[in-house]
Amino acid sequence: MDIPPIPPQGRTAGLMQFVRRRIAAREWPPGARLPSLRGMALQHGVSKSTVVEAYDRLAAEGIIRARAGAGFYVAGPLAPLALAEIGPRLDRQIDPLWVSRQSLDIGAQALKPGCGWLPDDWMPRDAIRRALRQVARDPDAPLTDYAPALGLPALRSLIARHLGTRGPAVDPRRILLTDSGTQAVDLLCRFLIQPGDAVLVDDPCYFNFLALLRAHRARIIGVPHEPDGPDMDRFEAALRTHRPRLYLSNAGPHNPTGARLSAIKARRIQALARVHDLILIEDDLFGDLEAGPYARLADEEGGDRVAQVGSFSKTLSASLRCGYLIAREDWLDALADLRTATTFSGAGLTQAVIVRLLQDGAWQQHTRLLRQRLALAMPRAIGLLDALGLRPWHEPDTGMFLWCRLPEGIDGARLARAGLQQGLMLAPGNVFSQTRTAGGMMRFNVSQMDDPSLPGRLAALIRNCPRDTPPTLSSEKSP
Amino acid sequence: MDIPPIPPQGRTAGLMQFVRRRIAAREWPPGARLPSLRGMALQHGVSKSTVVEAYDRLAAEGIIRARAGAGFYVAGPLAPLALAEIGPRLDRQIDPLWVSRQSLDIGAQALKPGCGWLPDDWMPRDAIRRALRQVARDPDAPLTDYAPALGLPALRSLIARHLGTRGPAVDPRRILLTDSGTQAVDLLCRFLIQPGDAVLVDDPCYFNFLALLRAHRARIIGVPHEPDGPDMDRFEAALRTHRPRLYLSNAGPHNPTGARLSAIKARRIQALARVHDLILIEDDLFGDLEAGPYARLADEEGGDRVAQVGSFSKTLSASLRCGYLIAREDWLDALADLRTATTFSGAGLTQAVIVRLLQDGAWQQHTRLLRQRLALAMPRAIGLLDALGLRPWHEPDTGMFLWCRLPEGIDGARLARAGLQQGLMLAPGNVFSQTRTAGGMMRFNVSQMDDPSLPGRLAALIRNCPRDTPPTLSSEKSP
Repeated sequence: MDIPPIPPQGRTAGLMQFVRRRIAAREWPPGARLPSLRGMALQHGVSKSTVVEAYDRLAAEGIIRARAGAGFYVAGPLAPLALAEIGPRLDRQIDPLWVSRQSLDIGAQALKPGCGWLPDDWMPRDAIRRALRQVARDPDAPLTDYAPALGLPALRSLIARHLGTRGPAVDPRRILLTDSGTQAVDLLCRFLIQPGDAVLVDDPCYFNFLALLRAHRARIIGVPHEPDGPDMDRFEAALRTHRPRLYLSNAGPHNPTGARLSAIKARRIQALARVHDLILIEDDLFGDLEAGPYARLADEEGGDRVAQVGSFSKTLSASLRCGYLIAREDWLDALADLRTATTFSGAGLTQAVIVRLLQDGAWQQHTRLLRQRLALAMPRAIGLLDALGLRPWHEPDTGMFLWCRLPEGIDGARLARAGLQQGLMLAPGNVFSQTRTAGGMMRFNVSQMDDPSLPGRLAALIRNCPRDTPPTLSSEKSP
Repeated sequence: MDIPPIPPQGRTAGLMQFVRRRIAAREWPPGARLPSLRGMALQHGVSKSTVVEAYDRLAAEGIIRARAGAGFYVAGPLAPLALAEIGPRLDRQIDPLWVSRQSLDIGAQALKPGCGWLPDDWMPRDAIRRALRQVARDPDAPLTDYAPALGLPALRSLIARHLGTRGPAVDPRRILLTDSGTQAVDLLCRFLIQPGDAVLVDDPCYFNFLALLRAHRARIIGVPHEPDGPDMDRFEAALRTHRPRLYLSNAGPHNPTGARLSAIKARRIQALARVHDLILIEDDLFGDLEAGPYARLADEEGGDRVAQVGSFSKTLSASLRCGYLIAREDWLDALADLRTATTFSGAGLTQAVIVRLLQDGAWQQHTRLLRQRLALAMPRAIGLLDALGLRPWHEPDTGMFLWCRLPEGIDGARLARAGLQQGLMLAPGNVFSQTRTAGGMMRFNVSQMDDPSLPGRLAALIRNCPRDTPPTLSSEKSP
C-alpha cells in the first residue's frame, strides 16, 4: 500500500488527507470500518491522540462516523443523508438528479428541450381516457384487491407477445411487473450487488443510473461510449481492473447519445460476460421507438446472463406507472419476494388499464406514428442546432435524443443554469458522465423543439453565456 | 473476544463453526470482510492452509464468498439470493413472506381468515368506478406526465387535512407521496440505516417488517409486545444492549395483536428516543379503523424523532397503490431524491383518482361504516373461535385483527399448511415473530369470517391436526 507522506503543516491534517483519499478512491467504501486507532497510529508513526483528533474532525465533517464502542466507519447514506453526498460532493445543479428535479418540478409553461420524454400531445390521451372508462365499467376489474406477486397474468402475456414482434420470443413466466422501469433496475441491483461492488456503465449514460447506483453504494466505473456501443478495449480493461459484477446499459437508441449497439459489440460483450462472470442489465425502454430491429444483449446469445427492463413511460404514459423485468426464471420468485418485502404489491388497476391499451389495435399504429414523427423531428433539430453552432456527436436514425457538442468555451452547466432562469430546461452533459468529462456537451430531445420561440431563445442564451478559453470541463463552483 | 475451543473432530470444522457463530450473531454482518488468512491462523494457532480449507468450504456452502484478490466476505443478499436466506435459514412455509405469498396468489374461491385486508365487498367499489370516470372526463387530469417529485399537491393537502381531523395538525410540506406504505417504510430505512444497524420491532409484529428489514440486512431485535404497547423494561434493556437506530412499529390497532399503545408508554418511548438518539417509524395504516383517538408516537411530543407512514390500502383500495410518509421537513428533499433515484416518479393518475375519492364527502361516511362493521365482527369472531378452543390474547375494541392462542399442542404452521390444502388461508404466529416464539398463536381477520362454512371447516382442521405433547413452538421441518 502506498502511504503518502504526511504534509508538514501537521500530522492531523496529513492523516485526514490520507483518509479522505482512500474514501474518495472507494478503497474504503461507505460503511467500511476504519483501521483501529492503534493500528493507524502504528502504521503512520504518530501518537494515538493524533489519530483520535483526525478521526474526530472527519466525523465532525460528516465523512466518517463513530459508533459507540465499535470504532469509526465511512459514512453511508445515513444519518440523515443527501444522496448528492454519496461520492464526491457535487454542485447540486449538475449532480445526476438535477435533470430529474428540474423536469419533474418546472412549470408547465417552460420549454423543455432537455427533458427525457415526448410532448403530452404526442401521447395517446384519448385512448387512455377510453381505457379508464372501460375499466370503470368492467365488473371484473381489479378495483380493490392486491395484485398477484408477479403482476396481472394478462399483462405479462401481452408484454411477452409484444416483445416477440420485435425480437426473440419471451416466456411470460420470466416476466415480473414492477411500478416502473427504474424500480425494475433497482430490484435487480438489490438482488445482485452489495455496497462496494463495481458496476460498469456507459460514459455518458442515463443520469438516473448514476443516482441509482450511488443509492446502492456501488463503485461506478464509466466506459467511454461510441456510436456503435462501448469502447471495447476500455470495457475489457475495466473488467480486468475492477472485476465488476454488473454492466448496466440502454438498448435501442442509447440515452443520452442516440448510439446504436452493433451486433459485433453485442456478441463481444456477451462473450466477455461469460468469461468474467458479469451480469448484464439492458434497459430497453426506448425499444418501441427504434427505426428497425437493433442488436440486443438480451437475445438467445445473451441467455441467462442478461436481465432486460422495460416500461410504457415513453410511449403510453409516465403517469400510469408500470414497468417490467425479464430475467432467469429461477430468479423470479426471489425477485418477487424482494419486491413484496419492499413495496408489497403492484398496481393492479394501473396494470388493467394498460391491458386495455395494449389490447387495442391502435397501440401498434400509435408507436408507428411516434417513430414517423421522430424521424421527421431529428433532421429538423439537427439543422436548428447546427445554425447555432452546436454539432451532433452522432446522427441517430431515430429515437428522441441528440447529443451535441456546444460551441467552443461554453460550459453546459452554466448554460443550463442560465436557461432555467428564462424558462428553458436544458440537460447539461456532465449530469450524464461519471467521469465528468462532458462539460462541453448537451442532450437535446428532438420531440420537444417545435416551439417557434426556441431557436431565438437558445441563440440569445448562447450569445450571452460567458466563455472560457480554454473551455473548462468541470470547473463548476457551488452557486 | 471469547474464542470457543476448537473441537477435537478437526481444526477445520472448529474454525468453520467459529465463523458460523459470528455470522449468526451478526457480529459479522453480511458484506463484512472476514479476517485475513494470516490473522485467522495466528489468532487460532492453526496453519494458514487450515484457514484456507475452512474458508473454501464455507464459500462452497454459500455462507461466505471470495472476491478475487480481495479476501473473503460474509455473503450478502447476493449471487443470486433468496430473501429467505438472509438471516437464519427458514422453512419457506413459515418465513415472513409466507402470508404475503399465499394471500396474493391463492385463488379467489379460498376463504382467507388469515389475510390482512377487508373483504372486497366492504370496499367503496362504486365510488372508485365513479372517480375513474371523473378523471377520464377531466381535461386537466395528469394522464401522461410524470408526477411532481413529492406527489400531487392536492393530495398532499387532503392528507394533511384528513390527519388533522383525527390528530394534531400536519404541515403538507412534510408529506411525501409514495407508491405504498411499504415503500414509504423502505425509503425511510434506505435513508436511515445501513447493513448491520440494529432495529427494534415488536414481537410479534407485522410480518413484512421482518422481511423488509432483512432486505436491508438490519439486525432485527424483537421486544415483547403487551396489550398497551411494548414491554418497557425489555425495550429499555434493548436500547442499552443493542444501541438500535430505529424502532419500527404500528400505531392504532396493532398488527397482529390488536394492541393499543397507551399514552404513558408513548411518552416513555418518546423520552427514551431523545436520550438514546433513536428514530421512531410509526406505520399508521390502520388509523382510520380505530375506535377513538388513540395515543400516537407521531404527535407534538414525538417531534422530529418520529416519521409517520400511512396508505389507503386498508380503507379505499389496495389496487390503487398510494402511500405517504410524514417526516422532518429538512429530510424531504433528500427522501424525494432517493425516491427519484430508485423508482423515478409517483403514479400521478392514481393520485388523481384518490383526490376524487377523498374530496367526496362519502369518504368520512365510508370509514365510519367500516368501523361499525368491524365493531360488530369482533365479538362475533371471538365467540366463533372460543367455541373451537381458541382464546384471544387480548380483546381489541376495534380493528380487524385478533391474535389467538391455539388449543394446547397445536402448531400454527402445521395447521396453516393443512388449511392451505383445503382452500383456507391462515396466518400462523411465527411469521410475525422474530424470536419464533409464537408457534402456538394465530392471527385472525374478523372481517373475513362471515362465510357460514368457516366454523365447520376450521373445527375439522383443528380436530385432524396432529398434536405435540408438550407443544412444540418452532419444530418445523422443511416439507
